[in-house]
Amino acid sequence: MRILEEIGLDFLNDEARAILRSAGCDVDADGARVRMDRAFVSEQIAKAPAEFIITPRNPERAISIGGNTAAFGSVASPPNVTDLDRGRRVGNRADFQNLLKLTQAFNCIHFNSGYPVEPVDIHPSIRHLDCLYDLLTITDKAVHAYSLGTERIEDAMEMVRIAAGLSSEEFEAAPRMFTNINSTSPLKHDWPMLDGAMRMARRGQPTVVAPFTLAGAMAPVTLAGAVAQQTAECLGAIALLQVIRPGVPVVYGAFTSNVDMKSGAPAFGTPEYMRAMQISGQLARRYGLPWRGSNANAANSPDGQAIWESVFSLWGVTSGHVNMVMHAAGWLEGGLVASFEKFVMDCELLQQLSYYHQAVGTSEDELAIDAIRQVGPNGNFFDCDHTRARYRDAFYSPFLSDWRNFESWQESGSPKSHQHANRIWQQVVAEFEPPEMDPAISEELGDFVARRKEEGGAPTDF
Amino acid sequence: MRILEEIGLDFLNDEARAILRSAGCDVDADGARVRMDRAFVSEQIAKAPAEFIITPRNPERAISIGGNTAAFGSVASPPNVTDLDRGRRVGNRADFQNLLKLTQAFNCIHFNSGYPVEPVDIHPSIRHLDCLYDLLTITDKAVHAYSLGTERIEDAMEMVRIAAGLSSEEFEAAPRMFTNINSTSPLKHDWPMLDGAMRMARRGQPTVVAPFTLAGAMAPVTLAGAVAQQTAECLGAIALLQVIRPGVPVVYGAFTSNVDMKSGAPAFGTPEYMRAMQISGQLARRYGLPWRGSNANAANSPDGQAIWESVFSLWGVTSGHVNMVMHAAGWLEGGLVASFEKFVMDCELLQQLSYYHQAVGTSEDELAIDAIRQVGPNGNFFDCDHTRARYRDAFYSPFLSDWRNFESWQESGSPKSHQHANRIWQQVVAEFEPPEMDPAISEELGDFVARRKEEGGAPTDF
Repeated sequence: MRILEEIGLDFLNDEARAILRSAGCDVDADGARVRMDRAFVSEQIAKAPAEFIITPRNPERAISIGGNTAAFGSVASPPNVTDLDRGRRVGNRADFQNLLKLTQAFNCIHFNSGYPVEPVDIHPSIRHLDCLYDLLTITDKAVHAYSLGTERIEDAMEMVRIAAGLSSEEFEAAPRMFTNINSTSPLKHDWPMLDGAMRMARRGQPTVVAPFTLAGAMAPVTLAGAVAQQTAECLGAIALLQVIRPGVPVVYGAFTSNVDMKSGAPAFGTPEYMRAMQISGQLARRYGLPWRGSNANAANSPDGQAIWESVFSLWGVTSGHVNMVMHAAGWLEGGLVASFEKFVMDCELLQQLSYYHQAVGTSEDELAIDAIRQVGPNGNFFDCDHTRARYRDAFYSPFLSDWRNFESWQESGSPKSHQHANRIWQQVVAEFEPPEMDPAISEELGDFVARRKEEGGAPTDF
Repeated sequence: MRILEEIGLDFLNDEARAILRSAGCDVDADGARVRMDRAFVSEQIAKAPAEFIITPRNPERAISIGGNTAAFGSVASPPNVTDLDRGRRVGNRADFQNLLKLTQAFNCIHFNSGYPVEPVDIHPSIRHLDCLYDLLTITDKAVHAYSLGTERIEDAMEMVRIAAGLSSEEFEAAPRMFTNINSTSPLKHDWPMLDGAMRMARRGQPTVVAPFTLAGAMAPVTLAGAVAQQTAECLGAIALLQVIRPGVPVVYGAFTSNVDMKSGAPAFGTPEYMRAMQISGQLARRYGLPWRGSNANAANSPDGQAIWESVFSLWGVTSGHVNMVMHAAGWLEGGLVASFEKFVMDCELLQQLSYYHQAVGTSEDELAIDAIRQVGPNGNFFDCDHTRARYRDAFYSPFLSDWRNFESWQESGSPKSHQHANRIWQQVVAEFEPPEMDPAISEELGDFVARRKEEGGAPTDF
């Protein structure tokens, strides 16, 4: 609050500043700086719902954001893609589509966080059209739209509306999708991000505001300072959106991590990240907002480091009662590459975590005193009635863990987990069947894409 | 308590049963079964300290067991050993000694949990003499003695006493070492384990009582039932030790995990293990006892699975406020093999966890409002004064993580974390210097070993 009051944020968007000026904020006459006092900020934030539901075209895939639930989303936005067979390469549409198949196939992935890899083989002016088409036809889970220019965000909203067979009024009546905007830390919100978020807000669609506050680089080297700055940048944009459409769903986005002080490289899944996430969760609850974290790591391959950084990330966010986890599956190299094998390994982690959060029963039956009495000191529980009645569903059964004894494992070629993951993603892609879509809707969506391509898509200078 | 009252435990040790009978327990006339009521159990447990200190020969290595501290111990008892260069082989003294060097060298390892690998090349009758000699000369950290027969435990106590230059009276005045006993689940305490624990108790030395309650095998398939049985088996033995020496330090040992219901193989680091550990922590606190968990996994190599199962294990125990973690570094294959690379990888995890548990400061300086003001929206924090003054110690600096960018990493041969770990353990072993020991003590210890070898060591039938 002191940062917002005393220092302020730069809103690099005339419209946003005009709105905030009208709302009583202190806006620089000849610059972009906006200061807002804590009473104003608190009043705006209080309008945001603590929990809301995003309903994609398949209503069975609706996800709750907030409260006691955590929704997991696929990796988003890496420029590169990798797998064990073909190695690392620049993102392309074929890999984009295959990653969507994994997103759709795994039940533990609840939404699309964005483009699972940037399909660089499609020209940027029309890329969003092909990508949204693929997202809406290969998956029926909630989609994200990038706030990267007016045409892109408006096209995305229209395509989501068409795919769900909704009128504009129906579309605007409830959250159907979301956008994630990043501040340009320190203390700056850029034009396209603000433009996209404001357009989404006007149509009742949710925005995640996730400052990119790496401690020691774009934010103070101290965790408390970095999280304070994250919070100020986040709340400033949320206040704007609440002025525009009071009650529009928003999410407190937490991305604070640290850099390697030797090289300046971003680090994730570190002790600093874990604590920043837990503090972020406390702050989100203080402000009554749902919050978003990530499953992040800075490893170059799906090795031990990738897994410990990922599990530490998941530890930090889930113990902080996260509501929305972006990049929950498939992220490597600090987000520079999407990995097919890591995607599958992450799904194993997410399933284990979901199971871990189930309550442990302590009924008389579950305390099993009678079974213990019956088996006694000279028996075992493998074949007693109590076990027989429960063993099928007693424990979580992993799909990726190799629990064979060493000899059997060695005989089968000593497969490592990333090799098992390789086999599994290939199988999922090979057996994939797209979710159903009414042919009339599919045609309308195709026509929209074709028309917008003819019109040139989004303007670029190349 | 109902298990101890209504069902009882088998104590396969005449002396133990005689002691419990004298103390008023209901002991079968013609069997091994002992029933004890909850008032008796509660009264005995209440005598045990909630926290105690083990002081090894180097008092600077003293460790607190209980309260808000967690002590980490090396892997113990695998029959096999493995490393990347030489593969998997049967345990031997050379590897035993090298693993002790790692135990000594890493500050995050606070005690020896036992033999880091079973040196099968030493005859069992004299193995404990050579092993204790190595433990007490290659490390100066607290040691564990196996309760596997009268001679072994008595010899171990004498050697610990000699190594610390203590009189018998001084040795018995405070905890200097520990033993870990496992019940033979379900519901049974065997002769050698009870004999060892009773001998340790008489000399004031601590015992960890860790039932081996795998849900679905030696314990009920339900978590509540398995942990209830674990608790009964544990408290029964602790009650006995408190009758023998009121106030002797004891530890509630938690080892409950589940089996793979398809094969019966033990599984670790599972959602069931995590929850069993958290419940165990709650029970230990209910009974006012320190508690012990493990860093366990069932992977066959130091791959992704090994790490996720390990981090999940560490998550379960540390979030459950564990006091003592056995097998904290080096365990693979459900304890059938000690891995040099996994030892180093685990040390990286332990260091990160230690750092994670440090409090986050929120002083005016740490909130960094002035630094944020000074840097403003158009600067960065890399070179501001606030960062300059703090960057050296601002973040945990991992020794094993490879945070280079992909290109540099690839140029250096794309090393995976287990390959980095391989390089590191070899370097630690090569540069190892044993801790100081007074030559007179070293000689006395050697003489003791020589004399006991001449006497035949511990009797065996082969």
